[in-house]
Amino acid sequence: MTVKVAVAGASGYAGGELLRLLLAHPGVEIGALTAASSAGTPLGQHQPHLAPLADRMLVETGPDTLAGHDVVFLALPHGHSAELAALLGPDVLVVDLGADHRLSDAADWRRWYGGDHAGSWPYGLPELPGGRDRLRGTKRVAVPGCYPTGGLLALAPALAAGLVRPEVTVVSVTGTSGAGRSLKPHLLGSEVMGSASAYGVAGAHRHTPEFVQGLGAVAGERVTVSFTPVLAPMPRGILTTASARLSPGADGATARSAYLDAYANEPFVQVLAPGSWPATAATIGSNNVQLQLEVDADAGRLVVVAAIDNLTKGTAGAAVQSMNLALGLPEATGLTTAGVAP
Amino acid sequence: MTVKVAVAGASGYAGGELLRLLLAHPGVEIGALTAASSAGTPLGQHQPHLAPLADRMLVETGPDTLAGHDVVFLALPHGHSAELAALLGPDVLVVDLGADHRLSDAADWRRWYGGDHAGSWPYGLPELPGGRDRLRGTKRVAVPGCYPTGGLLALAPALAAGLVRPEVTVVSVTGTSGAGRSLKPHLLGSEVMGSASAYGVAGAHRHTPEFVQGLGAVAGERVTVSFTPVLAPMPRGILTTASARLSPGADGATARSAYLDAYANEPFVQVLAPGSWPATAATIGSNNVQLQLEVDADAGRLVVVAAIDNLTKGTAGAAVQSMNLALGLPEATGLTTAGVAP
Amino acid sequence: MTVKVAVAGASGYAGGELLRLLLAHPGVEIGALTAASSAGTPLGQHQPHLAPLADRMLVETGPDTLAGHDVVFLALPHGHSAELAALLGPDVLVVDLGADHRLSDAADWRRWYGGDHAGSWPYGLPELPGGRDRLRGTKRVAVPGCYPTGGLLALAPALAAGLVRPEVTVVSVTGTSGAGRSLKPHLLGSEVMGSASAYGVAGAHRHTPEFVQGLGAVAGERVTVSFTPVLAPMPRGILTTASARLSPGADGATARSAYLDAYANEPFVQVLAPGSWPATAATIGSNNVQLQLEVDADAGRLVVVAAIDNLTKGTAGAAVQSMNLALGLPEATGLTTAGVAP
Amino acid sequence: MTVKVAVAGASGYAGGELLRLLLAHPGVEIGALTAASSAGTPLGQHQPHLAPLADRMLVETGPDTLAGHDVVFLALPHGHSAELAALLGPDVLVVDLGADHRLSDAADWRRWYGGDHAGSWPYGLPELPGGRDRLRGTKRVAVPGCYPTGGLLALAPALAAGLVRPEVTVVSVTGTSGAGRSLKPHLLGSEVMGSASAYGVAGAHRHTPEFVQGLGAVAGERVTVSFTPVLAPMPRGILTTASARLSPGADGATARSAYLDAYANEPFVQVLAPGSWPATAATIGSNNVQLQLEVDADAGRLVVVAAIDNLTKGTAGAAVQSMNLALGLPEATGLTTAGVAP
Repeated sequence: MTVKVAVAGASGYAGGELLRLLLAHPGVEIGALTAASSAGTPLGQHQPHLAPLADRMLVETGPDTLAGHDVVFLALPHGHSAELAALLGPDVLVVDLGADHRLSDAADWRRWYGGDHAGSWPYGLPELPGGRDRLRGTKRVAVPGCYPTGGLLALAPALAAGLVRPEVTVVSVTGTSGAGRSLKPHLLGSEVMGSASAYGVAGAHRHTPEFVQGLGAVAGERVTVSFTPVLAPMPRGILTTASARLSPGADGATARSAYLDAYANEPFVQVLAPGSWPATAATIGSNNVQLQLEVDADAGRLVVVAAIDNLTKGTAGAAVQSMNLALGLPEATGLTTAGVAP
Repeated sequence: MTVKVAVAGASGYAGGELLRLLLAHPGVEIGALTAASSAGTPLGQHQPHLAPLADRMLVETGPDTLAGHDVVFLALPHGHSAELAALLGPDVLVVDLGADHRLSDAADWRRWYGGDHAGSWPYGLPELPGGRDRLRGTKRVAVPGCYPTGGLLALAPALAAGLVRPEVTVVSVTGTSGAGRSLKPHLLGSEVMGSASAYGVAGAHRHTPEFVQGLGAVAGERVTVSFTPVLAPMPRGILTTASARLSPGADGATARSAYLDAYANEPFVQVLAPGSWPATAATIGSNNVQLQLEVDADAGRLVVVAAIDNLTKGTAGAAVQSMNLALGLPEATGLTTAGVAP
Repeated sequence: MTVKVAVAGASGYAGGELLRLLLAHPGVEIGALTAASSAGTPLGQHQPHLAPLADRMLVETGPDTLAGHDVVFLALPHGHSAELAALLGPDVLVVDLGADHRLSDAADWRRWYGGDHAGSWPYGLPELPGGRDRLRGTKRVAVPGCYPTGGLLALAPALAAGLVRPEVTVVSVTGTSGAGRSLKPHLLGSEVMGSASAYGVAGAHRHTPEFVQGLGAVAGERVTVSFTPVLAPMPRGILTTASARLSPGADGATARSAYLDAYANEPFVQVLAPGSWPATAATIGSNNVQLQLEVDADAGRLVVVAAIDNLTKGTAGAAVQSMNLALGLPEATGLTTAGVAP
Repeated sequence: MTVKVAVAGASGYAGGELLRLLLAHPGVEIGALTAASSAGTPLGQHQPHLAPLADRMLVETGPDTLAGHDVVFLALPHGHSAELAALLGPDVLVVDLGADHRLSDAADWRRWYGGDHAGSWPYGLPELPGGRDRLRGTKRVAVPGCYPTGGLLALAPALAAGLVRPEVTVVSVTGTSGAGRSLKPHLLGSEVMGSASAYGVAGAHRHTPEFVQGLGAVAGERVTVSFTPVLAPMPRGILTTASARLSPGADGATARSAYLDAYANEPFVQVLAPGSWPATAATIGSNNVQLQLEVDADAGRLVVVAAIDNLTKGTAGAAVQSMNLALGLPEATGLTTAGVAP
């Protein structure tokens, strides 16, 4: 038995990665592929790597074209999902890869995105405490932002166990695909190759409230987050470096133990052997998270490093993983922990 | 029913890519993983992207450790396969990813590699005329070199149809993984990033006789090949640009027709729509070949461009494709034509 | 004594490289910096690497803003230089980095660019036979295209000496800055990193007639040129691989001798020691050309490889070198042969 | 009048960059170029980008070959400079690009490097409080490590003014040339391209005590430093992201004011206009530091980002700048603030 899925926003990077994963998923049939300005052109013009779908035509994104599917993935710019989702009916599984349904606080939404708050949906990060239960059987999923995925997985066990103070710093080095296909001068190959640059610094990035919300829920208290994204010359991958001051009594052994416990049964989180440190290349194309931690005794801080593929575990892989949970399929169906390297 | 496979040379790039593909192959069980100096260490130290096999121990390469498998892949430096293969018994399927059994002419072998000629095995490029038949049911496969894979697929239809003169030029722009993991100064990241460089120019590269042999067989006459490899700053991929003077009467229409005919039923060769040109990124991690051709009327030449992933279709994917044919499995089992991009 | 120079098109890549070189030139004073849509903004917004000029304001490109300078550099899209140059007066040295004045044949111009032919100016490649004399004292310079610079320098000595047949193949691997700052999807960092791709194949690139014109003049007969540009993941650099069939009697020794003679006194062409092959990284930021040649006896062809920085020797460096000759300054003033590597 | 300079370690990346700068320095004559295992070979084999010095022979590093020079630069692995410097005589200006003379505390030296402590020399970072005076007329210079250069410049003004608490986090994204030419598997191009990875995490990197020493001196109290280096796929450049909790009463205005004051007269530190953030590409090949700061009011922290070229301002440029001060030359001689971009 297969479910029929539609992908809205099939011409973008998130949509493309989603389709690549769905092609390898034994339980789905790929239905409508929709787009905005690219409607009426074949997918092959936009996603030349998806050879099996090269001749599939893109149709206009709308309730008509998305009707008649069991699952609808929305890979759209923020602000476009809420209205569309409302028209899809309560029995359709709607998985939103955008930001519209991530923040539970309406004031947060207005401050960071503006406009009306659409409400929040179950958050597609099963590895958080209680996260898996919220996704089983749900008809609505808000896929996390790519930066929060790395940052929450890096810090949740320490905050949940009270091992660190609720004041964290996160620097996330990212590939360029996180910015999508937008034609901005600073995203030209000539500009990004050979360069590392910071942007959205000092709390200006829209993923910041998602960090604060997620970490606060885990910690059970307000957590301040100093978040800095850094653009690096690579197409994919996020390397998150997170640190926080140790709580009294916490040390390297208690920290390692907390992480090993938290992720013992997680199919997609790999706490590396001591001495090995994550590299994003090892995760490319996979849904795997590589994670390592160490206590800096001189500085009195816990340092955690996590590597993910921003388009897979950071976006489309999380969407498929969440779909599997929502539909009651084995969670890892269609996903892999083996990356494409070198 | 599954076959048990061993991989000799599991710590290298070719071995790693092979294991990545075998992990997704429903008909195989991965047995012994062997290495030379790395024997006794876990695979995860060398292939951190292969999370599912991280704890598998490497054992010494030899007839003992390779015994008891239905299929043995040899991903070894040239000169190491022949002796080992002789010890594996005639019922074992041996797939050699190295050069030892590619050249049929003993004098060619001695000139280009030196030492004794081990004889040639069926050539693992099913897309050549008669290629598929030679592989069905065989117990021995010589996987082509990565450059000849691109070059032969680019030129074979034109030479077979007599559309071009038997004097071709091939410039192949390659990623660095083709050189393997050898610690050579010119392969350091600091040297290759931001640089394109030529090497093995003017007929000096060891893949040249493989071009000459393969194209000559297709053309039915001696073909001269001017081959230049160019190292580009990317980990994977080969973009082959091949050209030759048109024969009298040949033109763009006859050329396109010859290529469409030759590759009409090939699962892994995609002749692009007119106006689209191949990019290696579209093939990464896949067994797909993207190909385009055009006649340059002013210069009187046919120009063909082909993109492959050197580690997949150029090495490990061809090995799996050949194994499938040798074992009588569906040819595409465990392989995909969807690349990992961007 | 210094000359006052203006740069039209100061916000683009060619204009930026020109300004970088002019900052180090002891004989010039940098005057007006002009732009189109960016007029009214400081240069620092567009060229953040030019710290010494960060606060200089861009003014509108036009005869008024360019008046009052001894030298005017035009780094504009093709079709914009001719009219402007006509307004600048015969005593001003006008150096056109665009295509408008490169082709001497009006029919060629119309076929490749369309519109009225502006006539040709002395060609800014002093290393060609007679090239230096044409530039001394001139008031008008047409700077060569970046691809022809590499290709003409690679092939001119062989064709001038009759060592090869007048039918050449050229494959040029280029960095992305050659395409300028245009916001095109295929130039996004996510697309170009990790990928090699061909474009303008089979005689479709506008630099082709410039090859044909330049090589024909050197050879004294019509030369056919099969030219293929390949885009590689690097910001700068062109590696040109050129080959042609040897004429009867020509061999490696006569070829090397012809190149050593041709370039013996050239300050910016370095014929490498036998066995060393050019790499673009070695030329970045410099006006140097690295060149190597070898005869492929099996294929009967001469193969020449040349590396340049497309923005320096391929554009802005050639402009400065030509200005020096036109003004009677030492030719190498403000230029270097030391690249920025690694 | 020129001074005669020798470079020990001329075949490495630091030595190569130093020679590139010295070629453009009007006050020096380049004398002996020394190496270890490469002695007896021409420089062109190791530094193909330094065309003007291609034929200069490398000689053995030792007191004999280094004798007779006014200035000796030591670009050697740590542990090799102290003994050699002792043999060079007190009148020779010795500029050590290695670590041997950076740490003033003998216990620190033993903990981090082992062996005997050679004592500390004036620190080649003129931009620190009092830094310039310590370098004027000195005969011995310890060039800072590349990471501390970025980190100290990013944090010194804030700590000196008491604007932040003495507990800082620093994440530095670096190009690969900082690791030198050592043939290590993780530095291969195939490994670094497309990947970001952390190493020396949690206080394990040898530059950590240099941070602690330098920041402590500026702050006048002990400063704890959580330092994480991240390797990114680019040959050059360090992007430093530093943050610390604001002291009571400090805010964005006081912070900006402190930085503008501290760097008002610095030729090589450029505090960017508000809203612009540093990119390493803008500094490549230059001695410039791009710096930006912002207060994150939600997190209560000051965030500072600084971009440098690790080989220029981070190593060889600082060496030349220090030499100029030591010799009484204008500080910027032979240096530029214009980077090579894109």
